[in-house]
Amino acid sequence: MRLPPGSFSIFRSLFTRRQRTEPQRRGLSGAAMRLVQFRRHGDSGGIRVGVEQGEGLGVVDLKAFDPSMPSTVKELLELGDMGLEGAQRALSSGHCVLERSDIQLLAPVLAPEKVVCVGMNYWDHCLEQNAPIPKEPIIFSKFPSAISGPYDDIILPPESQEVDWEVELAFVIGRRGKHIKEEDALSYVAGFTVANDVSARDWQMKRNGKQWLLGKTFDSFCPLGPALVTTDAMKDPHNLSVRCLVNGDTVQSSNTDQMIFKTEALIAWVSKFVTLSPGDVFLTGTPPGVGVFRKPPVFLKKGDVVECQIEQLGSIINKVV
Amino acid sequence: MRLPPGSFSIFRSLFTRRQRTEPQRRGLSGAAMRLVQFRRHGDSGGIRVGVEQGEGLGVVDLKAFDPSMPSTVKELLELGDMGLEGAQRALSSGHCVLERSDIQLLAPVLAPEKVVCVGMNYWDHCLEQNAPIPKEPIIFSKFPSAISGPYDDIILPPESQEVDWEVELAFVIGRRGKHIKEEDALSYVAGFTVANDVSARDWQMKRNGKQWLLGKTFDSFCPLGPALVTTDAMKDPHNLSVRCLVNGDTVQSSNTDQMIFKTEALIAWVSKFVTLSPGDVFLTGTPPGVGVFRKPPVFLKKGDVVECQIEQLGSIINKVV
Repeated sequence: MRLPPGSFSIFRSLFTRRQRTEPQRRGLSGAAMRLVQFRRHGDSGGIRVGVEQGEGLGVVDLKAFDPSMPSTVKELLELGDMGLEGAQRALSSGHCVLERSDIQLLAPVLAPEKVVCVGMNYWDHCLEQNAPIPKEPIIFSKFPSAISGPYDDIILPPESQEVDWEVELAFVIGRRGKHIKEEDALSYVAGFTVANDVSARDWQMKRNGKQWLLGKTFDSFCPLGPALVTTDAMKDPHNLSVRCLVNGDTVQSSNTDQMIFKTEALIAWVSKFVTLSPGDVFLTGTPPGVGVFRKPPVFLKKGDVVECQIEQLGSIINKVV
Repeated sequence: MRLPPGSFSIFRSLFTRRQRTEPQRRGLSGAAMRLVQFRRHGDSGGIRVGVEQGEGLGVVDLKAFDPSMPSTVKELLELGDMGLEGAQRALSSGHCVLERSDIQLLAPVLAPEKVVCVGMNYWDHCLEQNAPIPKEPIIFSKFPSAISGPYDDIILPPESQEVDWEVELAFVIGRRGKHIKEEDALSYVAGFTVANDVSARDWQMKRNGKQWLLGKTFDSFCPLGPALVTTDAMKDPHNLSVRCLVNGDTVQSSNTDQMIFKTEALIAWVSKFVTLSPGDVFLTGTPPGVGVFRKPPVFLKKGDVVECQIEQLGSIINKVV
């Protein structure tokens, strides 16, 4: 077997990974990074993968650094550790850095096989609606066509009068697996990001035979980003403050420690049913403060600006049009 | 603009299509074909696209005929009329024909962005369960990971004791669209095929907060095939006999004329919510005779063989393991 350039460092890192301490071993790779997808302004070309030099800082263009690198985060994840380590080398190089003003950030994952969503997964959100604490996760889905970028508009459909916000911790699967055990589950996570599980309550709760799908999956109803923060880059994904602001007013404020079924439990549960694949996105449920349970209920209207913030991950800001 | 070889025939066919009579103008292209995906036995290579010379007959290998042809039906559909017309030329050539015994048929579409499913869509199925006729389509989904081939096994999961059959007419979207009008809808359909909407009734009806997704989306719960029969190759998709046999006994027997919301209505409805893309699969609902409404209920067990047949389209035969 002939090794490509840089292989030595890859294999050395595969070896040393076994000796890492617990927090570092949680993720797919040792690379602590903020992966993004972007398009250069004025560039009619396709999607590019980048690594942020820090939250909101310059972005290293992976394909500019190494033309053999993939063009999407999903393809990068399909390469496994080798892909992430290639991205790490690009970041460390300090070369091929683009200014934020030169690029448009896209969702950090597009065209996943699955967008898996979890309902009723915050203790405080269940209390808010006097609902019993679920004994098993409640799983529903959006179509991948709902995904939009971290600063893209939320398009208010004429078919709904009750469009609502839901800030959520999202995670992305890094490798293929079925019947995954809870104790192994975090090693299947590539990283975490912020989602808004935008929801048309009239369609979710009163129509479509009470199947939630349609109310959850209008185009633009899944803003995602700004970056996919690799698992190793995070202290504890289940102790992060989570906030949603509408027009600057805080409407949701909680912590991921309120999650009933945490990342590991959700992966173990869903992988009983389906094979998980690199790029699959999980939205882990929302804390209290959504519009539909306010008295009187409040829904989004044209011109509103929704900001979803999660500690260590960043913010997505989406205008309602 | 420099035209590739064969372009003249493509543009002539684009021109003459406008003069076609109604039944011929329904589909995406004038090409009446049975598209398949397959793998050659003993070939570790990937998926190939083929065209059947007739139901169950030899299969023309598109990439063997023209190495520039795509490797998946989804990619072929993304090329639009030009892709289908290339497939038609390969079929007409009579070259590059593989024997059925040399190949394993796969589902005619894999990795679609969406598997859109419709509940309660047969008059006679609603009567069977004393359910009211829905005023609007009831839409749910499976994850694409559930799709399996026309002769693949249905894997009975230990998590369910109530796995049931549902023969269904399926169709596949051929071009991108949103807010599609009913009168234009058939021009968005690439073709039709047979599906078994395998369903774990315990999960669908009693668990997961009554969201149907999990009970519908176990791996192997969407056998599909044997071929994608292009719209132009069909007389009337809404007048086809539909049958399901379990171990040779007919358990479902109806006709697609019993569909409450037909292909055009389903496309118009779903495209109010989401942008449809080439390769998207719709399962249009099942007629009466499912196991759960029998007295006493009957469910699938290891060793059972389920055959779903639709007139003009063919049969899929799946063993339960």
